[in-house]
Amino acid sequence: MKDASPNTIEVCFTQTSFSYIKTQQPFVVVVVDILRATSAMCSAFANGLKTIIPVATLEEARSLKEQGYLVAAEREGSILSFADYGNSPLEYQKADIKGKTLVYCTTNGTQAVKLAEKASGLVLGAYVNLDVLTDWLTQNQQNVVILCSGWKNQFSLEDAVFAGALTENLSSKGKFTYNSDSAEASLDLWKIARQDLLFYHEKASHRHRLKRIGQDASIPFCFCLNACKVVPGLREGVLVDFLSEE
Amino acid sequence: MKDASPNTIEVCFTQTSFSYIKTQQPFVVVVVDILRATSAMCSAFANGLKTIIPVATLEEARSLKEQGYLVAAEREGSILSFADYGNSPLEYQKADIKGKTLVYCTTNGTQAVKLAEKASGLVLGAYVNLDVLTDWLTQNQQNVVILCSGWKNQFSLEDAVFAGALTENLSSKGKFTYNSDSAEASLDLWKIARQDLLFYHEKASHRHRLKRIGQDASIPFCFCLNACKVVPGLREGVLVDFLSEE
Repeated sequence: MKDASPNTIEVCFTQTSFSYIKTQQPFVVVVVDILRATSAMCSAFANGLKTIIPVATLEEARSLKEQGYLVAAEREGSILSFADYGNSPLEYQKADIKGKTLVYCTTNGTQAVKLAEKASGLVLGAYVNLDVLTDWLTQNQQNVVILCSGWKNQFSLEDAVFAGALTENLSSKGKFTYNSDSAEASLDLWKIARQDLLFYHEKASHRHRLKRIGQDASIPFCFCLNACKVVPGLREGVLVDFLSEE
Repeated sequence: MKDASPNTIEVCFTQTSFSYIKTQQPFVVVVVDILRATSAMCSAFANGLKTIIPVATLEEARSLKEQGYLVAAEREGSILSFADYGNSPLEYQKADIKGKTLVYCTTNGTQAVKLAEKASGLVLGAYVNLDVLTDWLTQNQQNVVILCSGWKNQFSLEDAVFAGALTENLSSKGKFTYNSDSAEASLDLWKIARQDLLFYHEKASHRHRLKRIGQDASIPFCFCLNACKVVPGLREGVLVDFLSEE
């Protein structure tokens, strides 16, 4: 599996473009949902959560709740009435979740996790785990596909900018190359946004959505670099922290 | 149909995202394939071509050739053996096409035309007709969806940058607003690229593709602002120049 030539990076701005990528196997998919699923899941693992069961539909989430599971479920940014948690990373900083299992169902994030399950590996990416993720991917020595969750199959600025940050991080160490227009565009967006990530994302439409529903307190955390030393990844259908396993 | 409030601009970076837009009817779709279908079609109309019959499959193109039509057909940037023309705008500057009809089948461009046929209007956008297109869309007073043709359902840098140029042009006159992350990203890319369009697009993957097959001579024309005073648009299934009709 190891090869002297650099591995490749591909960037998908939306879930709909994932099926058209030409990346050679084996590759690992990095699912990105900055606002807020992957940021929140990193926060939960950093606070001791043991396992996340990602589910794509509310029916599954409700059924597992009835079976006694802790459940995180949101739609359009708001927690659902039957759920224990929503999608705010701040909830998980205070929650009693150490060693526990959580069922997770969000608008866009877990949809992407389900979509990418067929890759040879899947990990979660966010600003809060950027550097440890970069190290893990570099050691993993496989091609990388960065899959932006987006918003209802549309382009999301915050996910695209993060794709640029991760592409720069990975390629700066000489172990990865990229050769796509989406990677180039993400790098250019990152170059503009990095000067003031929070200010830049004032114009992101999902940020406005979260503000409207009173969820803006969690936004600064989602743009906080390296707050969580975790690399959540998929193992046998559930998410675990690969770093705490090693 | 006329309204005091500004019309909206939506940007689709790939054809796959077109079906997810929420733009209110009526809207006009601007199909963009800078390298090179929409640049070439503008060039052809500027040189007096009367009608383009867009077709999505090579079978249709070949069948119409057998019926005696002039045919432009390319795949992967190269002219096909049965066709009269390929996809280079330079061909049409010299060709004897005044008053004629041309069947047109390209890798990505005419696919997008077929996809967008269900809108209330469809026009072609390129750098070569940027200003006259802006004027036409402003006078048309409908919402606008900019549909980047891309490359095989993937993001294309040159189309995304043009979307930013057109978004800036349209919104600067106060008649249009935008409220999407894709529009914001396209504007940021345009701000970087506009300083030297040709140099910026050195990194565009399709530019490299064209160079490999000896088609790079046509590239500077595709980034030449306002070389063609035409607004090709769809009327009863065929493309005509809306400006020469008025």
